[in-house]
Amino acid sequence: MQPIIHTTKIRVRYPETDAMGYVHHSIYPQYYEIGRVEMLRDRGISYKEMEDSGIMLPVRKIEITFFKPAHYDDELTITTILKEKPNITLEFDFEIRNQHNELLNTANVLLVFADTKTGKPNRAGHLFIQKAFGFE
Amino acid sequence: MQPIIHTTKIRVRYPETDAMGYVHHSIYPQYYEIGRVEMLRDRGISYKEMEDSGIMLPVRKIEITFFKPAHYDDELTITTILKEKPNITLEFDFEIRNQHNELLNTANVLLVFADTKTGKPNRAGHLFIQKAFGFE
Amino acid sequence: MQPIIHTTKIRVRYPETDAMGYVHHSIYPQYYEIGRVEMLRDRGISYKEMEDSGIMLPVRKIEITFFKPAHYDDELTITTILKEKPNITLEFDFEIRNQHNELLNTANVLLVFADTKTGKPNRAGHLFIQKAFGFE
Amino acid sequence: MQPIIHTTKIRVRYPETDAMGYVHHSIYPQYYEIGRVEMLRDRGISYKEMEDSGIMLPVRKIEITFFKPAHYDDELTITTILKEKPNITLEFDFEIRNQHNELLNTANVLLVFADTKTGKPNRAGHLFIQKAFGFE
Repeated sequence: MQPIIHTTKIRVRYPETDAMGYVHHSIYPQYYEIGRVEMLRDRGISYKEMEDSGIMLPVRKIEITFFKPAHYDDELTITTILKEKPNITLEFDFEIRNQHNELLNTANVLLVFADTKTGKPNRAGHLFIQKAFGFE
Repeated sequence: MQPIIHTTKIRVRYPETDAMGYVHHSIYPQYYEIGRVEMLRDRGISYKEMEDSGIMLPVRKIEITFFKPAHYDDELTITTILKEKPNITLEFDFEIRNQHNELLNTANVLLVFADTKTGKPNRAGHLFIQKAFGFE
Repeated sequence: MQPIIHTTKIRVRYPETDAMGYVHHSIYPQYYEIGRVEMLRDRGISYKEMEDSGIMLPVRKIEITFFKPAHYDDELTITTILKEKPNITLEFDFEIRNQHNELLNTANVLLVFADTKTGKPNRAGHLFIQKAFGFE
Repeated sequence: MQPIIHTTKIRVRYPETDAMGYVHHSIYPQYYEIGRVEMLRDRGISYKEMEDSGIMLPVRKIEITFFKPAHYDDELTITTILKEKPNITLEFDFEIRNQHNELLNTANVLLVFADTKTGKPNRAGHLFIQKAFGFE
């Protein structure tokens, strides 16, 4: 398949910075989450509705490489990339760049479709997503 | 009644600081919450069990006055004060001091006993609390 | 003076919710901060530039009344209201409403102009702000 | 060298949970940071003093695998493991277990010694750390 690419912009908030003057590294997983939720929304999938329908997407694995820090009030572009058809898992790549187009960090996040009530893997989830992306 | 006073200590974490080098003001409501949860635990009440039993305590009002900032790695003492018997509401006063015994901020927080499922006020809650504190 | 009113929209992020399913009450001070920063930006004042020029605006007092909770993915409107000409202090009122126009909470926040290096009150700050708002 | 192992305990705070009822995955990097700071403190190194002396330790890479979620009020044990002598970088492994001794997640975090003012790599940093751990 062709990679599916989506970008969304956010502005760094004051409490996201730390005493070094940088965005704390624990904030980026929150930015990646915004990236993938907005990619899904763009495809007509509301993560909230998916969760309300009984499917959740807990993170199974996350890997981040940091190159440069972000600062307060920076306008960041989150690029979300889907390379593989979702199966039992859903895998995204991310890139974050600042307003000067400098690459700040890259990440890979692996999620699992799970049943909201039992927490067990849920097959319905990936069908839901595959349909939205036009996969067969 | 005599005021009931409880103290607990916490150490400031790096991500709680901001680019000013101070603990961000939005963190203190989290510290006050730790203070009251630990006061309840000290009286044999687990807030978690209370919530599991169907009673939650959403915040209805909060008022904070800030005098001095806290910094990374400061060891703070949270003083939690209960002056009035809980009724439909539960009201706490708080003081936070640093390791030099400087008063950093004071607060008043008003909570309401509510049903976890409906979100409506719940009478059982304050009886639960009153018993734990030995009120009649 | 006529009150100056500004609105800005934000969408609730997943990590801002808590186990009750609500936005945690400690998140709202962060939303109010976004509200006032965007009001200032709208008047041509960059809070970041102000801070870089040596003036910061620590919070001195905050008072919040909560009526209804916000949930994940809600689209919230933050209304920021400036009623008084800034002096040594700067005071804002806030209202947050959800996408159904329900009033979720109101707040009053008092800030002080301070020198970034010394932390002491700074007179230059309010002149800076007064000029931007066209006060004399 | 023999791996150096340190454990520290923390209790899950309410705002660290999310609407799934789990600790949000972005919180764990904060827990790992507590783990390594406490390991250093145990060896007589104050991360704060190190930073005040001009050396900071920004995160360069982080990799986490999640097995089970943590919940509100869980008492977690953070195990911090140092396997290699620090050089230009400092690498830690982490394990987090709950009060039932269930393994919740594991992580590897790579940090770089950097100059607080310039942000450039700083050689003094690892000497500082090596001495504290008794490495030559």
